[in-house]
Amino acid sequence: MSTTESSPNGLTRREELLAVATKLFAARGYHGTRMDDVADAVGLNKATVYHYYASKSLILFDICKSAADFTVGALHDDPSASAREMIYHFTRRLLVGIASDIERGAVYFQEAPYITEWFTEEQVAYIRKAESSVYEHVRDVIDRGIASGEFYECDSHVLALGYIGMTLGSYRWLRPQGRRTAQEIAVEFSTALLRGLIRDEAVRAEAPLGIDVPGTA
Amino acid sequence: MSTTESSPNGLTRREELLAVATKLFAARGYHGTRMDDVADAVGLNKATVYHYYASKSLILFDICKSAADFTVGALHDDPSASAREMIYHFTRRLLVGIASDIERGAVYFQEAPYITEWFTEEQVAYIRKAESSVYEHVRDVIDRGIASGEFYECDSHVLALGYIGMTLGSYRWLRPQGRRTAQEIAVEFSTALLRGLIRDEAVRAEAPLGIDVPGTA
Repeated sequence: MSTTESSPNGLTRREELLAVATKLFAARGYHGTRMDDVADAVGLNKATVYHYYASKSLILFDICKSAADFTVGALHDDPSASAREMIYHFTRRLLVGIASDIERGAVYFQEAPYITEWFTEEQVAYIRKAESSVYEHVRDVIDRGIASGEFYECDSHVLALGYIGMTLGSYRWLRPQGRRTAQEIAVEFSTALLRGLIRDEAVRAEAPLGIDVPGTA
Repeated sequence: MSTTESSPNGLTRREELLAVATKLFAARGYHGTRMDDVADAVGLNKATVYHYYASKSLILFDICKSAADFTVGALHDDPSASAREMIYHFTRRLLVGIASDIERGAVYFQEAPYITEWFTEEQVAYIRKAESSVYEHVRDVIDRGIASGEFYECDSHVLALGYIGMTLGSYRWLRPQGRRTAQEIAVEFSTALLRGLIRDEAVRAEAPLGIDVPGTA
């Protein structure tokens, strides 16, 4: 059997294996899932599974790395954008991305407290660096908004952590087929948060997300 | 040995056992902790541990029940209070409570996705009922604020879920000895959120937490 052979759904065997393992880890936890379970669920024998991934922890690392890379990639770094636009666009990309792969987000968050048990130092450092850059980005955007007078004075450190809990924690309840789309939820979150941060009453009332309201541009 | 014998720190043996198990579950996960580990850490033999708890899942249920009961107990149900006061006081009680027992909160949140694997139907129903009542309380407070004109129109369902992620998710980074106290963090969270919800410009600027500012009462 070729190692790049595609499965019926168009994924490579390795991708399919990763997708199946992600579902199992999300439902039962990493510790509660054995390589045998993964092999059974994907319909391969265990030797073949080990051909693709030499250990279970390498599967977990691929899932966590993918989630961390996605989150870092969602950061909106346009120096010409206002702080409120940066926050809105980051929120929108985050929620749309989480909704598109709930199980990846679930594994990433559920296993985060234990990764030092499974990962090498380099792997842990990779994930921690991504997490720090997301936190620092959000904090810096809030700080920039305070410095420019766009936002009220506030504790950017604490609010960045609260923001991350509000948005990334949505994997617990966000559903692709829910009554509100991820995009709509991003507008609700951003509107409430940004109305709370923006000083200027006209901006706050008319364009809290930094999007031009027709007729005012 | 008497089953109500106290350990040197003044806890009953059962309380001490629960405290030790909470620390182990928080650090390694429920699945990754064996009853032998609990017995070793508390300095009892396994038979004695089983005397206090007939199964590992009963320990986990006690931890989760305690966390769920605490959260429900923190709900502020004063019909004469404004919606902003209700939200501020709930936030304050929640964060102070989480900071006072980070590991209990960690176990509760980390194991929540898997409790149907370990708990009886009645136990799951108990936890789910507590979670629903917290969500419904927050949503109803926001709805009440919208209905009275205190708050902007918004999606109370989505904002209640975001609020829960922001506040309860703080067990990930809240530390009793951190640079900001739980009380201070509650003020930061509530101020940002409530400034985002409150319609009235004077209330919003002067008393977003519903606390009288000296000189305006």
